[in-house]
Amino acid sequence: MFVLLNDEFVNRNECLIDIEDRANQFGDGVYEVIRVYDGEFFLLHDHLKRLIYSLEEAKINYDIHHHNLADQLQKLVEMNNFKDGGIYLQISRGASPRSHPFPKHTQPTLIAYPIPVTRPLESQEKGIEAILHEDLRWLRCDIKSLNLLGNVMAKQSALDAGAKEAILYRDYNHVTEGSSTNVFIVKDGVVKTHPANHYILNGITRLYLFYLAELLNIPIVEEVYSIEELKNADEVFISSTTSEVISVIKIDDVQINNGKPGPIAQKFLQAFFKHKNIKHLSK
Amino acid sequence: MFVLLNDEFVNRNECLIDIEDRANQFGDGVYEVIRVYDGEFFLLHDHLKRLIYSLEEAKINYDIHHHNLADQLQKLVEMNNFKDGGIYLQISRGASPRSHPFPKHTQPTLIAYPIPVTRPLESQEKGIEAILHEDLRWLRCDIKSLNLLGNVMAKQSALDAGAKEAILYRDYNHVTEGSSTNVFIVKDGVVKTHPANHYILNGITRLYLFYLAELLNIPIVEEVYSIEELKNADEVFISSTTSEVISVIKIDDVQINNGKPGPIAQKFLQAFFKHKNIKHLSK
Repeated sequence: MFVLLNDEFVNRNECLIDIEDRANQFGDGVYEVIRVYDGEFFLLHDHLKRLIYSLEEAKINYDIHHHNLADQLQKLVEMNNFKDGGIYLQISRGASPRSHPFPKHTQPTLIAYPIPVTRPLESQEKGIEAILHEDLRWLRCDIKSLNLLGNVMAKQSALDAGAKEAILYRDYNHVTEGSSTNVFIVKDGVVKTHPANHYILNGITRLYLFYLAELLNIPIVEEVYSIEELKNADEVFISSTTSEVISVIKIDDVQINNGKPGPIAQKFLQAFFKHKNIKHLSK
Repeated sequence: MFVLLNDEFVNRNECLIDIEDRANQFGDGVYEVIRVYDGEFFLLHDHLKRLIYSLEEAKINYDIHHHNLADQLQKLVEMNNFKDGGIYLQISRGASPRSHPFPKHTQPTLIAYPIPVTRPLESQEKGIEAILHEDLRWLRCDIKSLNLLGNVMAKQSALDAGAKEAILYRDYNHVTEGSSTNVFIVKDGVVKTHPANHYILNGITRLYLFYLAELLNIPIVEEVYSIEELKNADEVFISSTTSEVISVIKIDDVQINNGKPGPIAQKFLQAFFKHKNIKHLSK
């Protein structure tokens, strides 16, 4: 397997990073996971747009256009003859003697390589169980950063409880998102999801669902909702690059939609592949 | 330079880590910086005790006794003929194909190596300036984890403002700690610092100051205090492994103690080296 390491393609086994890379010591970097279906990127430019946002907010000085990143990623897919899965891409602030402040003369480190992703068909068909978990993460979840220990611990708690996702809340009245997904609730035909602010990551699949909602004439609003609204929703579903759309049929001990995937999630899922040749969700 | 990599000593240049080490992709690890003065560790066992706490809370399965970590660190100092500075030590959950949940059969990755630390004599003599900065970090700051982007960004904001430390607050009434230090205020002879809970890292130097306070008959309490109390304090000072004790003489535009280091901080600093042969602060 070839890995894109900065501007070069190297063999996976030769791709190692310095112990003082700031990703390794501070989680000081940002990332994307971009889906590849049938050898084609899905929403590549929207992922790159968000990557630029994360880089700017974290003040990591990396110009993706200067490095022809879109072309390089395309080449990475071709060199690996990669058909289905994800491209994991991370840019750290680079390697420098350990010290908190930004190093002055350090080049960022870019790594990109293919990762296996299989469509979660069984979860999509049957729905999944989730737990509620306090959102312990920092207050800049809009930056897709490598500081993921809060997400990791929440996800593991879900698995330990026999569930597949942790739905996070900051207080009883404030459900934010999943440990690696955005969360949507449906009540009386209206879809509701947390506003895209510092409390959540604005998922590319989340944005795609807004696009599909318009096509499908499904009302969708960005609003904070409570645990009570979550548990009393007609439907709950999650979205992410690797999950696409999956219904949540049980949260802790509460069944949602009588333990069955709901019709709105199914509509999104059916439309998902019909429209996936769209090149840009936004400018 | 030799680096302790797991149970082996390797040359610094040969010490590289896998791109899928969880430290690199999730900040999924914990660390310590242990001070070495004149070839001797300072409060090694207290650092190792906190390391065990961090490992347990992060559920990283690494037994420091099984690996004879204290002896290995001693050997690391000797092999490098290291006299003054710090030993940086980090333990990640290990390398595994990228996925949020804890990997099942992965060995943690340990890295330890000497880093330069010089005593901040000028800052101790003259005091430093600090800024106030919102505490954006996660709610498990008691774990000394590699998720440090919030700390890094706050520290950089301080430097950008011409100051040396950012003092963090969660709201007007809740000053927590510095971006890489604990913060103490003095009012009418009583020292106050944030309680050791999930909002702060319980610094080993912080604990050492509690020990010194008892010896010096300086009243010290653990209590949350406000920005107003901070700015109106008779003295403000910070502590950390590398800072030892440094007075803060200005916070944003407000002078503290007429812009001079205060007497209590100076007492702590004078006692600091007198008592530093203590082997354990606690069991």
